Amino acid sequence: MTAAVPLEQLNAASADDFAAALAGIYEHSPWVAATVAGQRPFGSLASLHAAMTAAVRAAPPARRLALIEGHPDLAGKAARAGAITAESKSEQGGAGLDRLSEEEYARFHRLNDAYRAKFHIPFIVCVRRHTRDSILRQYERRLENTAEAELDAALDEIGRIAALRLNDRVTAADALPVSGRLSTHVLDTRDGRPAEGGALTLCELGDDGSRRLIVKAVTNHDGRTATPLISGRPVPIGRYELRFEIGAYYAARNTPAADPPFLQSVPVEFSVAEPEGHYHIPLLVTPWSFATYRGS
Amino acid sequence: MTAAVPLEQLNAASADDFAAALAGIYEHSPWVAATVAGQRPFGSLASLHAAMTAAVRAAPPARRLALIEGHPDLAGKAARAGAITAESKSEQGGAGLDRLSEEEYARFHRLNDAYRAKFHIPFIVCVRRHTRDSILRQYERRLENTAEAELDAALDEIGRIAALRLNDRVTAADALPVSGRLSTHVLDTRDGRPAEGGALTLCELGDDGSRRLIVKAVTNHDGRTATPLISGRPVPIGRYELRFEIGAYYAARNTPAADPPFLQSVPVEFSVAEPEGHYHIPLLVTPWSFATYRGS
Amino acid sequence: MTAAVPLEQLNAASADDFAAALAGIYEHSPWVAATVAGQRPFGSLASLHAAMTAAVRAAPPARRLALIEGHPDLAGKAARAGAITAESKSEQGGAGLDRLSEEEYARFHRLNDAYRAKFHIPFIVCVRRHTRDSILRQYERRLENTAEAELDAALDEIGRIAALRLNDRVTAADALPVSGRLSTHVLDTRDGRPAEGGALTLCELGDDGSRRLIVKAVTNHDGRTATPLISGRPVPIGRYELRFEIGAYYAARNTPAADPPFLQSVPVEFSVAEPEGHYHIPLLVTPWSFATYRGS
Amino acid sequence: MTAAVPLEQLNAASADDFAAALAGIYEHSPWVAATVAGQRPFGSLASLHAAMTAAVRAAPPARRLALIEGHPDLAGKAARAGAITAESKSEQGGAGLDRLSEEEYARFHRLNDAYRAKFHIPFIVCVRRHTRDSILRQYERRLENTAEAELDAALDEIGRIAALRLNDRVTAADALPVSGRLSTHVLDTRDGRPAEGGALTLCELGDDGSRRLIVKAVTNHDGRTATPLISGRPVPIGRYELRFEIGAYYAARNTPAADPPFLQSVPVEFSVAEPEGHYHIPLLVTPWSFATYRGS
Repeated sequence: MTAAVPLEQLNAASADDFAAALAGIYEHSPWVAATVAGQRPFGSLASLHAAMTAAVRAAPPARRLALIEGHPDLAGKAARAGAITAESKSEQGGAGLDRLSEEEYARFHRLNDAYRAKFHIPFIVCVRRHTRDSILRQYERRLENTAEAELDAALDEIGRIAALRLNDRVTAADALPVSGRLSTHVLDTRDGRPAEGGALTLCELGDDGSRRLIVKAVTNHDGRTATPLISGRPVPIGRYELRFEIGAYYAARNTPAADPPFLQSVPVEFSVAEPEGHYHIPLLVTPWSFATYRGS
Repeated sequence: MTAAVPLEQLNAASADDFAAALAGIYEHSPWVAATVAGQRPFGSLASLHAAMTAAVRAAPPARRLALIEGHPDLAGKAARAGAITAESKSEQGGAGLDRLSEEEYARFHRLNDAYRAKFHIPFIVCVRRHTRDSILRQYERRLENTAEAELDAALDEIGRIAALRLNDRVTAADALPVSGRLSTHVLDTRDGRPAEGGALTLCELGDDGSRRLIVKAVTNHDGRTATPLISGRPVPIGRYELRFEIGAYYAARNTPAADPPFLQSVPVEFSVAEPEGHYHIPLLVTPWSFATYRGS
Repeated sequence: MTAAVPLEQLNAASADDFAAALAGIYEHSPWVAATVAGQRPFGSLASLHAAMTAAVRAAPPARRLALIEGHPDLAGKAARAGAITAESKSEQGGAGLDRLSEEEYARFHRLNDAYRAKFHIPFIVCVRRHTRDSILRQYERRLENTAEAELDAALDEIGRIAALRLNDRVTAADALPVSGRLSTHVLDTRDGRPAEGGALTLCELGDDGSRRLIVKAVTNHDGRTATPLISGRPVPIGRYELRFEIGAYYAARNTPAADPPFLQSVPVEFSVAEPEGHYHIPLLVTPWSFATYRGS
Repeated sequence: MTAAVPLEQLNAASADDFAAALAGIYEHSPWVAATVAGQRPFGSLASLHAAMTAAVRAAPPARRLALIEGHPDLAGKAARAGAITAESKSEQGGAGLDRLSEEEYARFHRLNDAYRAKFHIPFIVCVRRHTRDSILRQYERRLENTAEAELDAALDEIGRIAALRLNDRVTAADALPVSGRLSTHVLDTRDGRPAEGGALTLCELGDDGSRRLIVKAVTNHDGRTATPLISGRPVPIGRYELRFEIGAYYAARNTPAADPPFLQSVPVEFSVAEPEGHYHIPLLVTPWSFATYRGS
């Protein structure tokens, strides 16, 4: 991926350079950027994104359809053969669609086929907002829709994809509201202080029982992690486990414990529904109890 | 296993019948029962068990050694061939020692060999108080002991085995303190009432990542299970997961929730250190929080 | 108050003796008991109470009205002069209506007058289900009612008063569902055990800022009180404070603490809405945290 | 009080002006500032305070004693007559020493007399770090000391008073570590969001049952108060009640509740031991439960 371009530079560029710089924001559709070049200068990323979204919605139906059809199938043959845009490849990889088993590929293909058979367009979803399981649920739900609702849904998803790409490629005073946050805070309520030096892990949980490590961290003097567990990007819709190694934490402090300790490792399973939300998951611990909640 | 015999009947029986009835309390050692027959009548199971334990401790060293050597290896060749007493077979099966992989059998054999090499006696542990993993930890710890301490440990374990067998076979006004209890209680603190109709499962967790279902239950009108999750027997030393299906519980009550719900399934991982203890694990839940602790 | 009479004895008595024994169940209205004497034998207190309630409802309007008018004013002149039945005196005293200030008496008199002016009957409420403040709220609410609704309300309250009196005076296999319960359970989640030996108090809180001690207790080995804080009677509708002396509890255990301890005394303020309900108020404490909830 | 002076201005002033500007930092003892004038420039408030503290400790015993004796009695006759420095007057007023009853004045006088009788110096304490009750406890504790220890304690307290005065009067890049913080955060765990719009009050609790309102506030969209409940000054050692009006909060949200609501007003009583500490007191609430802890 090329370095991000300042918005002012885009505002000052020739119309062609502007269009070229943003050609990849909409899949195989440089015309979107070209359409809004004349509306410059844009005072913010938000106004640039709004203009591009409006240009798409105002385009003739055939053009909109071509934009939709320019998107590759999810986990499709083109993706497996490497014949998709670098943007799509990176996005699909983030959701794990590049490490499916043969059986899983087959499932995606069946869903793609069913979707195309009903709606005659590829299934489009902003994969960076999803985990593999939530993408599968999207297929199931959206297959229930009418064709009209799905055209609309496809354009909504394209708008979300564009927002994420814009946010990555263009720097400006504002940021598009595409990022969520996942954070934690461990309080030792036995001793009335932040739980410092405790190990924790965040895993994504699959419906098939799989678990994928997202991050390992150690709590600092304030019981928090140095940086949020997830930030600067959407928190993919899905199921997670945050696990705190409470047994080791108290052992390191020489706190009396049962043998084996009553609590050794505290898992908190939770689900994310709003990728742009703030999920703060505090943990209140003693050697004999724990509590958690959605905080703020 | 034959039906339990009333203590009064044993008190009234001939010395031979008494000894015969209790011949199996000590592995291949009917002499223990015979020794205490003359001390009848016993007023309680506790006094009967104390007399038998004292008889063992007072026996000549060679006899005590023979008692110890009469015990089969854990997960040993005799057990695999079915050549052990019915009592031992049932006890070893309870801890899962009859469903080991080849690799696990090999591990037990190596530990049995190491133990015999150091102490010249079989490794004896009251397996009904343990899970497979805690038995393995027992080997490791006890291999550090002196020979004298191990003779003592073996007799202690034999005393525990005898207590459990006595408790099963003889009915009396008292019960030996060999049973623990594991129970739960789910409170819905969103609505201020017991969480009725929620599904929960108790699994034993293995160090190898395995999970073995112990019991499934549904909470009653008081948020409890109809019977304790474990009772009437020791709660084996080990690691457990109690899991409550909170998402389904609130869905059944039509409580508004995120999509997917923030909490779908709440796992509580805890360890048991005292097989004869009472482990009460309450769960306080709302759709957005939960808390647990060792209760009473 | 005379000793309780077994229901069987009442069933076997002459009609006159039966009516005499139950003459006081309905204020100045021995006819209620006399009316149902012929329906004997009663298999349970519940069926006796149902029969008496039905007899009242089936009586001619004038008789029902006389029953209502037979009740004294709450905190009225007759009560102050001692000119009311022993039952009424004891009941009014329980709610503290015999220890009002002049100002409070005046307030009750004004409310009694307003009620009589609107409805032409005395205000009747089952005072044992109320605190002084909730009685005052009853006046305010019921003054909004229609005359018809108030006649009905008066008979309902008379039925509740009769149930409590019957429950006190007649012993039977069943008890009328007139009693609630208020209990607590203190868990020390720092050390994973019941908080034994901690002092607690239950006070009734008045809207005027007053507090009236109901009971002092010390937690036992299970973290509970020897008997429920309130049981065997209605828990009066009202506001309460349950206070646990946590600082002294941890000091007695030599638990390290700040100076002064962060938590010295933990008050829980709560209100009772259902006098026949079970209010279980557990307290989970560490030197640095506490939690409470309506349990079961 | 005059406006704060920048440290650079003090560094650049004449020695006389410097000494004059800081004459009031030590009670009736302008010599302390004069002594350190030659050590300028001071790079920070911390180094200025350290120099002044060192000058006091290095002064001849008679001068140190005169400094100590220059302090007025707490709640003494001079204070009542207004014959003390403006600084002392303001400080004593903050702890409520200017609104004592006759009985309380008498108690302070007795303690002052006892202290002078034993140590021949006035009792000195940095009152801004205390409540009236904790000052009284200080008397009791310090009366147990040796004369030597008390001379030392008096100088320590004088150093604390000087630090607070310096921090008020001189602006610099650093601040002296004399301030604590008291904050809260209310989470609605019924609905999984910050409790917005809830009323809360912070009161100081007296040993005599008195309560003094410190601040009223309403929680914002994040469940916090716009500014910390206490900040920019020491949090006086003492006992406090933080009270959240939970009944009104849920009523405003039309949350179903009992009548009266189970929880109407949630008090949290806690004590402050470290005036310079951060006391974060979160509150997790549902209509049927609440929890609190010392957070961070």
